[in-house]
Amino acid sequence: MENQNKEEEEQIVTPWEVTAEKGGKIDYDKLIDKFGCQRLDQSLVDRVARLTARPPHVFLRRGVFFAHRDFNDVLDAYERGEKFYLYTGRGPSSEALHLGHLVPFMFTKYLQDAFKVPLVIQLTDDEKCMWKNLTVEESQRLARENAKDIIACGFDVSRTFIFSDFDYVGGSFYKNMVKIAKCVTYNKVVGIFGFSGEDHIGKVSFPPVQAAPSFPSSFPHLFSGKDSLRCLIPCAIDQDPYFRMTRDVAPRIGYHKPALIESSFFPPFRFHDGETGKMSASDPNSAIYVTDSAKDIKNKVNRYAFSGGQDSIENHRKYGANLEVDIPIKYLGFFLEDDAELEHIRTEYGAGRMLTGEVKKRLIEVLTELVERHRRARAAVTDEMVDAFMAVRPLPNMFS
Amino acid sequence: MENQNKEEEEQIVTPWEVTAEKGGKIDYDKLIDKFGCQRLDQSLVDRVARLTARPPHVFLRRGVFFAHRDFNDVLDAYERGEKFYLYTGRGPSSEALHLGHLVPFMFTKYLQDAFKVPLVIQLTDDEKCMWKNLTVEESQRLARENAKDIIACGFDVSRTFIFSDFDYVGGSFYKNMVKIAKCVTYNKVVGIFGFSGEDHIGKVSFPPVQAAPSFPSSFPHLFSGKDSLRCLIPCAIDQDPYFRMTRDVAPRIGYHKPALIESSFFPPFRFHDGETGKMSASDPNSAIYVTDSAKDIKNKVNRYAFSGGQDSIENHRKYGANLEVDIPIKYLGFFLEDDAELEHIRTEYGAGRMLTGEVKKRLIEVLTELVERHRRARAAVTDEMVDAFMAVRPLPNMFS
Repeated sequence: MENQNKEEEEQIVTPWEVTAEKGGKIDYDKLIDKFGCQRLDQSLVDRVARLTARPPHVFLRRGVFFAHRDFNDVLDAYERGEKFYLYTGRGPSSEALHLGHLVPFMFTKYLQDAFKVPLVIQLTDDEKCMWKNLTVEESQRLARENAKDIIACGFDVSRTFIFSDFDYVGGSFYKNMVKIAKCVTYNKVVGIFGFSGEDHIGKVSFPPVQAAPSFPSSFPHLFSGKDSLRCLIPCAIDQDPYFRMTRDVAPRIGYHKPALIESSFFPPFRFHDGETGKMSASDPNSAIYVTDSAKDIKNKVNRYAFSGGQDSIENHRKYGANLEVDIPIKYLGFFLEDDAELEHIRTEYGAGRMLTGEVKKRLIEVLTELVERHRRARAAVTDEMVDAFMAVRPLPNMFS
Repeated sequence: MENQNKEEEEQIVTPWEVTAEKGGKIDYDKLIDKFGCQRLDQSLVDRVARLTARPPHVFLRRGVFFAHRDFNDVLDAYERGEKFYLYTGRGPSSEALHLGHLVPFMFTKYLQDAFKVPLVIQLTDDEKCMWKNLTVEESQRLARENAKDIIACGFDVSRTFIFSDFDYVGGSFYKNMVKIAKCVTYNKVVGIFGFSGEDHIGKVSFPPVQAAPSFPSSFPHLFSGKDSLRCLIPCAIDQDPYFRMTRDVAPRIGYHKPALIESSFFPPFRFHDGETGKMSASDPNSAIYVTDSAKDIKNKVNRYAFSGGQDSIENHRKYGANLEVDIPIKYLGFFLEDDAELEHIRTEYGAGRMLTGEVKKRLIEVLTELVERHRRARAAVTDEMVDAFMAVRPLPNMFS
């Protein structure tokens, strides 16, 4: 029983479960220590800005992407004139994406534009088929639907290869899966992922599938003869366990360890004690979906976005808002690009001179514009475009 | 310690280990009971002869293939006019095959000719890469070399598809791997195959790879729209665990259970106490290789084939040979096709009227002819022929 209580108090972060410790807050410093990754500090942000000759992305300068592994090495190599490739992905478990799902793709698009590098995007329809008990066909349908949302983020088709595992696994990719699997014991994956003996062997077989894109030879139509090419993976930190495993294996099969740049979790609505966990797709009111109408957004923000404002106008004017727990402020931190305006709102709201309603009104504007823009972009994504992104082909502008 | 002694006494038959019980003999009746398969009795042999309008293969009428699962169902369907397909395979771990390796292929060729059905042959280069710690390249090279020996057995290219896992896994095949893996827990594969936590996850991932060819949809270029097609697997009985698992899964993913027809193990030379285990490729004197010269064969048979003859000619004339432990008699049982001659030798040798030297002389003739014939056939197998058998294509004469 003691053990159980202890577990309940500890935060749990795996690719399938994010549970905050008692108190409801994810302790990201503790996570960095536990996982053994590095904090992405200001000097590194400055270095990115210098190397790319453009301002760092909002998600970088505001610490959404807050941790990394060997990102410095990738930048060292880049500075010497060596390019790299980007790898990110998505498990297509739901039709409509919420804003949290877009975060890694928005950031990856920035990295692609800033560094002018190729990008592979893995849609793990096999994973979702196994974990969510979807049929193969339904997983593949969702993968294609999700691909449209991803493409709508603005990726450059001349530098981007999107693939579904069910379509693409085989050949050199499968050979790398086997090479990886040979280097990882069952006890090891139990230690990393917490599988049990009653879990099906599909789960045990999957980590090499997510690891394989970290190695350039998995994509012979892209990186033939470029085995020493480095890989940089932007992802949420809950995916770190896959890549810890991958990094252990890499030198044993003759590759660089993939570098990582890792984000915190996107905060859900309806939370009353600061930030916790990932936004969940299961409660539609806890998230803004890319399919939400302006009316939906207005309603959700006004009704469900937890406010750090005081319970009366008098108290609010007197004490100011608690920005630490205020969801609208957090969301503006993600999506309001103007630093000066954000700072202004934080100051005024924190001092009680600005009211919750005003902050929410601004958030509704920002989100509505973002969602409308995404919806227009997605509507313009044709099946032919999806086919073009997913075609197994060389990428013409890969390193230019 | 008691437990350990008990284990040492029990026979162990898995795809990777065949150990006889104390006394050195594999008890095939016990194996049938333990595995839960059925004995292939005379009435079934007669039925095959009747249905195919040709004499049953030596391996069938002499009980080399001695057990089965649902072979009767396949024949029932065949009698109703429903065809089936054959599936067999090989783990390409060594360059030169010995005669024991040829047994399933010789028998499968007979089945293909007799029933006029398509055949898929899986070369599990991925398995051998993982179990034997071969490189991917070496496993693939061995697969191709072994394919030449298999083709030399006389398969009909218009009805036969040979594939290497490293080349072929992907698409519908991979989808079936995932569907299968979803239905099998880790505890289950530990129960069936005896994996331990220190085994690498490649081993845990492999059973679905060997299971997938049992389902027609794994081969869309062959069996598109024929999901109800039955599969018959000729194999040595040590492969039974894979297909027990496969048969458990089959109805859950919408397919017939594959039927099996299973052989005993091929006896090695240099064995002094009857038959045991499989012929091992590790001791070159324990086996006749398809690359052996006439001189090698003569030398091996004379020096290493354990004889059941008595220690002096006087005693031999008096007591006769012990046919139960006599390796030349066992080998003649596999490869001397003339029933009358075999019976004559058994009678004369058993009664002491024929000497060991005479029996060995006849065996040397039989084996030399077999190996020479195989060598000539193999020498005629060109790289183009290998490519033709391994091409992903429809099979023109599949069911005619």
